Amino acid sequence: MKKINAKNTVAVATKVVLPNDTNTLGNLFGGQLLAWMDEIASVSAHRHCRRVVVTASVNNVSFQKPIKQASIVTLESKVSRAFYSSMEIFVDVYVEDHVTGKKEKCNEAIYTFVAVDQNGGPIQVPEIIPESDEEKKRHDGALRRKELSLILSGKLKASDAVDLKKLFFKK
Amino acid sequence: MKKINAKNTVAVATKVVLPNDTNTLGNLFGGQLLAWMDEIASVSAHRHCRRVVVTASVNNVSFQKPIKQASIVTLESKVSRAFYSSMEIFVDVYVEDHVTGKKEKCNEAIYTFVAVDQNGGPIQVPEIIPESDEEKKRHDGALRRKELSLILSGKLKASDAVDLKKLFFKK
Amino acid sequence: MKKINAKNTVAVATKVVLPNDTNTLGNLFGGQLLAWMDEIASVSAHRHCRRVVVTASVNNVSFQKPIKQASIVTLESKVSRAFYSSMEIFVDVYVEDHVTGKKEKCNEAIYTFVAVDQNGGPIQVPEIIPESDEEKKRHDGALRRKELSLILSGKLKASDAVDLKKLFFKK
Amino acid sequence: MKKINAKNTVAVATKVVLPNDTNTLGNLFGGQLLAWMDEIASVSAHRHCRRVVVTASVNNVSFQKPIKQASIVTLESKVSRAFYSSMEIFVDVYVEDHVTGKKEKCNEAIYTFVAVDQNGGPIQVPEIIPESDEEKKRHDGALRRKELSLILSGKLKASDAVDLKKLFFKK
Amino acid sequence: MKKINAKNTVAVATKVVLPNDTNTLGNLFGGQLLAWMDEIASVSAHRHCRRVVVTASVNNVSFQKPIKQASIVTLESKVSRAFYSSMEIFVDVYVEDHVTGKKEKCNEAIYTFVAVDQNGGPIQVPEIIPESDEEKKRHDGALRRKELSLILSGKLKASDAVDLKKLFFKK
Amino acid sequence: MKKINAKNTVAVATKVVLPNDTNTLGNLFGGQLLAWMDEIASVSAHRHCRRVVVTASVNNVSFQKPIKQASIVTLESKVSRAFYSSMEIFVDVYVEDHVTGKKEKCNEAIYTFVAVDQNGGPIQVPEIIPESDEEKKRHDGALRRKELSLILSGKLKASDAVDLKKLFFKK
Repeated sequence: MKKINAKNTVAVATKVVLPNDTNTLGNLFGGQLLAWMDEIASVSAHRHCRRVVVTASVNNVSFQKPIKQASIVTLESKVSRAFYSSMEIFVDVYVEDHVTGKKEKCNEAIYTFVAVDQNGGPIQVPEIIPESDEEKKRHDGALRRKELSLILSGKLKASDAVDLKKLFFKK
Repeated sequence: MKKINAKNTVAVATKVVLPNDTNTLGNLFGGQLLAWMDEIASVSAHRHCRRVVVTASVNNVSFQKPIKQASIVTLESKVSRAFYSSMEIFVDVYVEDHVTGKKEKCNEAIYTFVAVDQNGGPIQVPEIIPESDEEKKRHDGALRRKELSLILSGKLKASDAVDLKKLFFKK
Repeated sequence: MKKINAKNTVAVATKVVLPNDTNTLGNLFGGQLLAWMDEIASVSAHRHCRRVVVTASVNNVSFQKPIKQASIVTLESKVSRAFYSSMEIFVDVYVEDHVTGKKEKCNEAIYTFVAVDQNGGPIQVPEIIPESDEEKKRHDGALRRKELSLILSGKLKASDAVDLKKLFFKK
Repeated sequence: MKKINAKNTVAVATKVVLPNDTNTLGNLFGGQLLAWMDEIASVSAHRHCRRVVVTASVNNVSFQKPIKQASIVTLESKVSRAFYSSMEIFVDVYVEDHVTGKKEKCNEAIYTFVAVDQNGGPIQVPEIIPESDEEKKRHDGALRRKELSLILSGKLKASDAVDLKKLFFKK
Repeated sequence: MKKINAKNTVAVATKVVLPNDTNTLGNLFGGQLLAWMDEIASVSAHRHCRRVVVTASVNNVSFQKPIKQASIVTLESKVSRAFYSSMEIFVDVYVEDHVTGKKEKCNEAIYTFVAVDQNGGPIQVPEIIPESDEEKKRHDGALRRKELSLILSGKLKASDAVDLKKLFFKK
Repeated sequence: MKKINAKNTVAVATKVVLPNDTNTLGNLFGGQLLAWMDEIASVSAHRHCRRVVVTASVNNVSFQKPIKQASIVTLESKVSRAFYSSMEIFVDVYVEDHVTGKKEKCNEAIYTFVAVDQNGGPIQVPEIIPESDEEKKRHDGALRRKELSLILSGKLKASDAVDLKKLFFKK
């Protein structure tokens, strides 16, 4: 199975925050942003494996600053690492300054998608080749996040989490 | 500031999965479920502190099994722990068997909301009193999750994460 | 066919009134509330009979006071009485005071649903057992409302409306 | 205050039933139709009084036959009678046969709207002049329906419902 | 194939501009109006040919003045001319003055629809009979617009555009 | 006023066609695509002038082939030419083959936006610098399209349409 370069899984969606998308403070509704990120992440996952993909989990979504109505929001997603049938995807969210046009990062999220067949069973996906420094850093972190998730769900003993343990001893 | 019993923050929303809510496999769209969970979690957060609340982060959302169109879905949210101005909220999602009516849990998510004033500045919220076993377990876990989140975002050194370290040594 | 206790048909949906749901006065749009009530009533009907159910009629919906944007609205529905294949359902709508959290009733509606088979033909549903005082009162009224509806649609002569006539003679 | 001819309050909306509007049987979702009827009825009410109007109550909505996806649906609304600040509006719903183009009536509903000022207080509206036979019949019935609604809400004694009593004695 | 009178293809939709439909200036969102016009034009096309119809092209949509939230908007569509399997449809958009009720035209668009069979192949449609002066003028113009569209897409040489050339020589 | 390179006005939006977006044939609803194109075109217009922009007209939208549900659709928009306060924007729409990932162009549209001040009055925008061959071709065509639009709306005599006349004489 041919490996895929991380950069070939990039997907971009630019949107305008309409009244329809806002909460009662006039800012982008958290739930709406979560739905937008899910949609664009599914495109990256699909571009990686060319299969039907479904959301498996969402993690590390932080809403650092409110996004005002009328803002132009750009979502960029990229696969950071693939495990047998699952893909970890980073979604970075940027808001554009109305006057200068400068983009500022305002959110980040990690989604996991799984490739499935007609019966919903898992299908193997290609491995990813990280190239840039950020791609490599996120690729490495993915293993740690996977161990952590297995521990938290009781499927792995903490003492066996090789990669994660380093975090607690060495640092 | 008077403490609040966890059970007083419960919020419930029952929904029918309409064609409008489905992905291309005819199952509930992940992004739509994320938006629904965000909405009901915001109600629990508001019931806890009676303030304007905004989504701060989302974690540990796992989509274990697909939810089919026409399903009756019940979302139950409850505050698990409050830190100065933030509240951790568990959302449990159940699907109801059409024939027997038995509810089966199919998703779980952890949202964090923050209480804010008119300028978006944080406001202190009451502490929570966990009573049931599950409430206590989630209340305890909240501290570990907070440490973990601080480590992952680089705001805490792993060696200072007192509660989290126990996980790696004792277990 | 086993009778069902009214309380086992309760369905609850809590919602936040978002900008998306408001009319041009900034209040919850009447049509949106009607759609919400229809959805939750269908859940009660389904919980009563475990069949596919469709809306048959709507009556006595009164909008007593406007519901402002950002309000937390709770809809509670319960089957009041079952006739051969139809079920009368009450939907009570409450708004929660932002500061005190006190719920105040602001709307009430009566929906009728019918259980149908694959061809849309009617299917018999269980009878209901009213227990509380309010359940009994609504159960009794259902007969009167049914007579009234038959008279208004010309399917029953007013002189044969036994239960309804009492209203005009005795009171 | 100048009286208004009923026919001058007519409002029409033709719609295509899209996947977005259907329930899990592939038919037009009851709640969606209720919302559509509310919208067009508000136009008739506004055309009658040229004021801001809000939904006051909904009655006698019957869903006689399912409306399939892809149907062309026409809603026609008209004010049947005005009382001090309220207007009773009939909404008739027709479905068009795809091959012959013949319109068949499939639903009917009675909405009541109230004209309000900036503070939500009631404003007087003009009287209506019914002309056609159907307009006259609905205009007459409106009084009976109003009495009935007052009795059911406990604001009128049945024995004082002059117009309604005729229904039980004379017919 | 029996010809159809233009007036028999009229379709009307009256709508209220809700917050949901507005852009960040509080005016009707251009994209929303385009979607509304597409829907009502498809009804006219269907009424003309009684076939499944799909949008083929959109032209000459001009947004002359902003339409404010809460406006009552009426869309009127009519087939102006039919070519083998395609139909040109005019959509006129009117806004109603809140106080006087006078309708003012604020938009106009030309949509082309094609009648298709199950495989998406074109089906012949009836010719149109224009009767009023405006119907005749639009019927004549349709030929010129078709030539123009063929030239712009490179399917017709400008020198062969008989009807269009008159525009440049005679006028 | 500093001129802007055409390529700096590019905006991209990738979307998945959900059931919510389809017409009754299971293909992307024409009206929905029009709305999506309007949104992304507004981003290009805004990036060009950094002002509030509103849709002025839409032209030359052709729907060459149906876009199926579940398709991944990419919209790319770019300003082709600026006139005093208006900007012509091309939107190209691509569909991605599910297996090969190859993008195929399936739609093209030309939108015109105007930059407006707080009162809706026009504001001058920078000129555009076309660089690539396609940018130059579209930049040239924009003048012809403007003349054509002025003729069709009766604001320019055909004999004065210098650029457009060449099309009929020389070609």
